[in-house]
Amino acid sequence: MKPVVGFIGLGIMGEGMLGNIIEKGGYRTVIYNRSAEKCAPFAEKGATVASSPAQVVKEADVTVLMLANSDAVQWVLGGKDGALSGISSGKTLIDMGTNTPEFNEKVKDLVEERGGDYLEAPVLGSKVPAKEGTLTILVGGKEEKFEEYRELFGTMGKAIFYMGEVGKASQMKLIINQIMVGMLALFSEGLVAGERSGISAQKMLEVVKNSVLNCPLFSIKGPNMIISHDFSPHFPLKHAQKDLRQALSRGDKLAVPMPVTAAANSLYIMARDMGLGDEDFSAVIKTLMRGDGEVHIDI
Amino acid sequence: MKPVVGFIGLGIMGEGMLGNIIEKGGYRTVIYNRSAEKCAPFAEKGATVASSPAQVVKEADVTVLMLANSDAVQWVLGGKDGALSGISSGKTLIDMGTNTPEFNEKVKDLVEERGGDYLEAPVLGSKVPAKEGTLTILVGGKEEKFEEYRELFGTMGKAIFYMGEVGKASQMKLIINQIMVGMLALFSEGLVAGERSGISAQKMLEVVKNSVLNCPLFSIKGPNMIISHDFSPHFPLKHAQKDLRQALSRGDKLAVPMPVTAAANSLYIMARDMGLGDEDFSAVIKTLMRGDGEVHIDI
Amino acid sequence: MKPVVGFIGLGIMGEGMLGNIIEKGGYRTVIYNRSAEKCAPFAEKGATVASSPAQVVKEADVTVLMLANSDAVQWVLGGKDGALSGISSGKTLIDMGTNTPEFNEKVKDLVEERGGDYLEAPVLGSKVPAKEGTLTILVGGKEEKFEEYRELFGTMGKAIFYMGEVGKASQMKLIINQIMVGMLALFSEGLVAGERSGISAQKMLEVVKNSVLNCPLFSIKGPNMIISHDFSPHFPLKHAQKDLRQALSRGDKLAVPMPVTAAANSLYIMARDMGLGDEDFSAVIKTLMRGDGEVHIDI
Amino acid sequence: MKPVVGFIGLGIMGEGMLGNIIEKGGYRTVIYNRSAEKCAPFAEKGATVASSPAQVVKEADVTVLMLANSDAVQWVLGGKDGALSGISSGKTLIDMGTNTPEFNEKVKDLVEERGGDYLEAPVLGSKVPAKEGTLTILVGGKEEKFEEYRELFGTMGKAIFYMGEVGKASQMKLIINQIMVGMLALFSEGLVAGERSGISAQKMLEVVKNSVLNCPLFSIKGPNMIISHDFSPHFPLKHAQKDLRQALSRGDKLAVPMPVTAAANSLYIMARDMGLGDEDFSAVIKTLMRGDGEVHIDI
Repeated sequence: MKPVVGFIGLGIMGEGMLGNIIEKGGYRTVIYNRSAEKCAPFAEKGATVASSPAQVVKEADVTVLMLANSDAVQWVLGGKDGALSGISSGKTLIDMGTNTPEFNEKVKDLVEERGGDYLEAPVLGSKVPAKEGTLTILVGGKEEKFEEYRELFGTMGKAIFYMGEVGKASQMKLIINQIMVGMLALFSEGLVAGERSGISAQKMLEVVKNSVLNCPLFSIKGPNMIISHDFSPHFPLKHAQKDLRQALSRGDKLAVPMPVTAAANSLYIMARDMGLGDEDFSAVIKTLMRGDGEVHIDI
Repeated sequence: MKPVVGFIGLGIMGEGMLGNIIEKGGYRTVIYNRSAEKCAPFAEKGATVASSPAQVVKEADVTVLMLANSDAVQWVLGGKDGALSGISSGKTLIDMGTNTPEFNEKVKDLVEERGGDYLEAPVLGSKVPAKEGTLTILVGGKEEKFEEYRELFGTMGKAIFYMGEVGKASQMKLIINQIMVGMLALFSEGLVAGERSGISAQKMLEVVKNSVLNCPLFSIKGPNMIISHDFSPHFPLKHAQKDLRQALSRGDKLAVPMPVTAAANSLYIMARDMGLGDEDFSAVIKTLMRGDGEVHIDI
Repeated sequence: MKPVVGFIGLGIMGEGMLGNIIEKGGYRTVIYNRSAEKCAPFAEKGATVASSPAQVVKEADVTVLMLANSDAVQWVLGGKDGALSGISSGKTLIDMGTNTPEFNEKVKDLVEERGGDYLEAPVLGSKVPAKEGTLTILVGGKEEKFEEYRELFGTMGKAIFYMGEVGKASQMKLIINQIMVGMLALFSEGLVAGERSGISAQKMLEVVKNSVLNCPLFSIKGPNMIISHDFSPHFPLKHAQKDLRQALSRGDKLAVPMPVTAAANSLYIMARDMGLGDEDFSAVIKTLMRGDGEVHIDI
Repeated sequence: MKPVVGFIGLGIMGEGMLGNIIEKGGYRTVIYNRSAEKCAPFAEKGATVASSPAQVVKEADVTVLMLANSDAVQWVLGGKDGALSGISSGKTLIDMGTNTPEFNEKVKDLVEERGGDYLEAPVLGSKVPAKEGTLTILVGGKEEKFEEYRELFGTMGKAIFYMGEVGKASQMKLIINQIMVGMLALFSEGLVAGERSGISAQKMLEVVKNSVLNCPLFSIKGPNMIISHDFSPHFPLKHAQKDLRQALSRGDKLAVPMPVTAAANSLYIMARDMGLGDEDFSAVIKTLMRGDGEVHIDI
């Protein structure tokens, strides 16, 4: 028999994921969102709207959290009507947001102290794959629990990885973001050199597409960076820099030198100082063009 | 009527490219190689073997150079029997190797002084795409000459880009290598952090494949770096570091700050100091790991 | 009338400082040390030996802490017999150790909640200036309290600076250490280049002494680094790296890019990974000589 | 008997040095300057004014060059009336300007081919020590020639070092400048963090003076950087960055990783891009500050 699925957090990502749980998966759902009006369209599709996080957990077998950041998770978990207060033996909590390994290990302990089970399951992909159910999902926790909810994950994602104990999946997500954010700084350095040499922006991007560097990241961000100059935030620069900071902090703990990541991090901090924190993280390219737009060749 | 094609330089890349010119393209060819025995298999397929670079240029309408580095180009061009001495009005020289923009601009001047035409046409791709005729080819020089030889390029590559005047194509190639070599240093930092956190190497690479970072570079190099530990040289580390050096030098001239590339360059120099210059450039990962493989966490 | 001075923490620094308070200053003192036997020599000079931190605070007007790190401060402050439990109106606590601004701000709040006063007063200088009473002392807190104890500080130091509110002095100390630790990495890069070029180590150090770079840091560390190769720890590398980490973290909060400090930090992390964490921080030079001692010039 | 001393190059440095040769040393002199009017004051003191560099060399036993850069040296050496054309057995040329080791090695060869002797003797110190005869002088070349002219050097400097063969002294000067220029970038990072934390600029500089970091560089540049904001060029930023570039290039050849220097170099390149190339090299601090002076803390 299918479990009842709780879902808390109807942001851009959560809406798409919940839609798939209901429509592709056919699960019975209990939902909660801080701004209650977001629940209405799902209530029409049969979801039960709960009055608190605690109620979601109590009425569901497994509750998925998809929240903006760790502060929001703390808000949802804690207090009299918080999700934790609904946890008891037989309940499972799955946090699909992005937190540090340390944070998730603590939540796991809190859940297990109350007799429940915990999985971390951060995702790769943004709005469109969330809607289409094609996310990549990284799962950390007990393997039997992962197996138990594999079908549920399957409604939301097309590539599902069991990474090991709690902390491993969030660490993996951190590594992906570290490489991704660093790559965009490196890409920027090449693009600016090309532009300043008079190479057509369009040509540069086409050549990259026909090289071993060809990846969705460059295909998606490249045109915004040097053709349309569109830096509206898909992944805000200040959050990208936070991920570099956390990756570096993790590297420091493990005694792994990360000089290239550290150089990229300094550029993103400079970008924040220039007031670009709320633009897309691809706006880091602007740190390399700080002059008056003219080339200063005075060597 | 099809032009007669000269070809000088039968290394790993040249062999594949010449094979396609003869077999796919059906061109009549005149060839030369410093080690003459490499010419034999092509002579059997109908190629005329010349006794010097000069003779190639004199008997062909257009001569392709595919040599290991700029020193070899200088050797082939210069002297009494050098390629330059065969150049006259109506002759075209196409250098498909990788040199700096400055070098190619000088060779162009030398060719034009003798009444000939010059194209630079560096390629992206290595042994396999050379053999299969699926290289990416970046062409710099006069656009009408590019059009004249587009069919010839088409026998060797599947993506052919006209980049603009001489210097633009070699600059583009330098940018691709800058980003590529930098990416591998960045990738190394993430992989070592993952390994030291106890994440399975196999899992890490699969997750990368299912992320926006997915690119041929990581797919090809990843398994060698953290599974088979195979650092046999496809692109020797000392050559990769040379490309970073040249990209940084170019950035310096253009007043483009490249702090991330510079950090990567320092790691590759350290790798050279550790005696890794002749291994594959992916061996840069070894700079991030102590000899004894133990973690030293003493913070 | 002179205040009674409490003193907790008789390490290498504390011994020298307490000696000056008693002998140069002529203060009546009450002392405590976790290893009680360190108190004996001072008892002979008239100091009262207390049985707990709380007792020190109760019997003294002002209590100086000189402890190894923030963990030791927490141990001394907390618990039933901790220093905090002795604080009441009219008591002053002066922490002369090195902690982050954030830590000191918290301790200040705890002291003030109990009606006491708090000064942070980190010092520059090590064993010898502590013994000779020639430390540089940076003081943060209320200015009238600073004035009240200026004479006391004068027994321990020859340069006493009032830096402003609590947090400013610890921030200043962090900046000094950031520059100092970074300078030694930079110095190492120059020294290794000189050695590898065949310049005499002795000559290099003499030239530095006769340049605008001449500073006690280079005079003290230089001979150990390239003549005697003595890396016995005066300031352990892992602590130096911790200071860079904290300076970078502070820079991140303030949106101050610190790319040079970040590059130095990566070298020190690499040094930790190489097992050098417990050597002197000047051992960072070994990260630049990781090969077999031979020069690998293969460009 | 005292040698006749030739002197070419009456810039800010040269004027002071020549003054000391004549007045302190009592040497007979033959002089040349591209702008002839600079020679007049020295003619009044007894110097013979020559009509060309060649004439200087012919009439003098030893000729000192003190020119702005290597291009000026090439101009003075070459051509029909160039200094080289005057070289013959028994003549010595001493270049006291700053060039790369490679450049000086070539000039040495040219001088020796003509039977002459060559010393490189770059100096540390600027206008004031040049005038007062208190420069630090680094000498490379044959030791007996160094001894022969030690008295002459003594009129210009107070610390004279024999560094070894030609190339060693210029390499040493490059190392000094590498560390010096890098130190100012590092210093900037600390100063900006301090300012943004609300620490008084004056206090910061006083604390530095009372620390192991105390050096003439920080004493001279500090007040200009954060109190008077005076960036009028004593050592232009673009020349300082050129020295970092040459030091890094040298490190690359020797396989010495220089990640900290490389990070500093990127900041100076950014400064050039911001149009600061002709300001003093201490203007690098402006790269760490937004134009509007506001703090953007949005983490």
